[in-house]
Amino acid sequence: MNRIITIGREFGSGGRTIAKMTAKKLGIPVYDHELLSQIAEKSGFSKEYVAEKTEDSTWNSLIARSLSGLSSGAQIPAEDYLWRMQRQVILELAQKESCVIVGRCADYILRDKADCLRVFIYADPAKRMERIVSVYGERDLSPEKRLRDKDKRRSAFYNYHTDMVWGAVHNYHICLDSGAFGLEKCADFICSLY
Amino acid sequence: MNRIITIGREFGSGGRTIAKMTAKKLGIPVYDHELLSQIAEKSGFSKEYVAEKTEDSTWNSLIARSLSGLSSGAQIPAEDYLWRMQRQVILELAQKESCVIVGRCADYILRDKADCLRVFIYADPAKRMERIVSVYGERDLSPEKRLRDKDKRRSAFYNYHTDMVWGAVHNYHICLDSGAFGLEKCADFICSLY
Repeated sequence: MNRIITIGREFGSGGRTIAKMTAKKLGIPVYDHELLSQIAEKSGFSKEYVAEKTEDSTWNSLIARSLSGLSSGAQIPAEDYLWRMQRQVILELAQKESCVIVGRCADYILRDKADCLRVFIYADPAKRMERIVSVYGERDLSPEKRLRDKDKRRSAFYNYHTDMVWGAVHNYHICLDSGAFGLEKCADFICSLY
Repeated sequence: MNRIITIGREFGSGGRTIAKMTAKKLGIPVYDHELLSQIAEKSGFSKEYVAEKTEDSTWNSLIARSLSGLSSGAQIPAEDYLWRMQRQVILELAQKESCVIVGRCADYILRDKADCLRVFIYADPAKRMERIVSVYGERDLSPEKRLRDKDKRRSAFYNYHTDMVWGAVHNYHICLDSGAFGLEKCADFICSLY
């Protein structure tokens, strides 16, 4: 049976880098932005549109979607359609090979469907702010605001689709503070648990 | 400088056993029930009274205490006095030697005061119910109710005294699902991080 590692992560925690390091150490593929391309291909939408309507959804757009879903009857809103595509892409990946999957509710989608190690990476806000400025550069928005916005979107997307709480320990097998241990050591732990 | 491991744990997760295993592997002492005796000695109260008024406080008694504090003016309620004793005992321990400390908000009390690895142990309720029945035996109360009551008391005590949320990832460096990995392996991880 394929063995999957899902990595949920706070923005700026280095979770994506840890995922890459882990996959490299284990010699298995990692799916992060690659998922977007696959969902885009499957759905016929552009990658940008998929990004905006999936993990980057705002809470407002999710609410608006619920309301429009109520009023428009049988029509399927784009987000629901994309959620189905995303679910299908992730299930197919897990069927195909052992791999590391970053974000996108993969922990929830694969629950009871695959042999899955569920990881959550976080760090204290000061360390994450430092990291986003050094990795992604300065923006007009302050690092505080960028963190808050991105985490809010991720948690809204997760909570909406899974009915669970993003970052709550019970959804994961292990939660690691990357600021305390460093990225390399986090990847080593995850490998030792695999 | 002494190096301390604090272990917060859900009831029935085996956190206390993991603490003992970890301490044994590292050759350092572990403080769990021993803390109660020390707080009792320092305060002049009985161990049973200390247990009831500290980690086993009910939310109601904490509320009642707040209200009585408001009405009784300068008098110090017993729980506040015990909280100070507990704080002092834990700070003195951390000064004295490297050790493992179980529960009692030690992670919070030692924050910024000691070189501290903060761990939280949890497991899914089904596994914890199984464990409390096998370790502590059957009781009149159902295992579900026993879990709920005990976790409620621990979280009320923690949240009340620390103004943080018990079991929220940011309070800890690592959170481990003991049901997924087993107690021995959890102790090994913690040792490898120390």
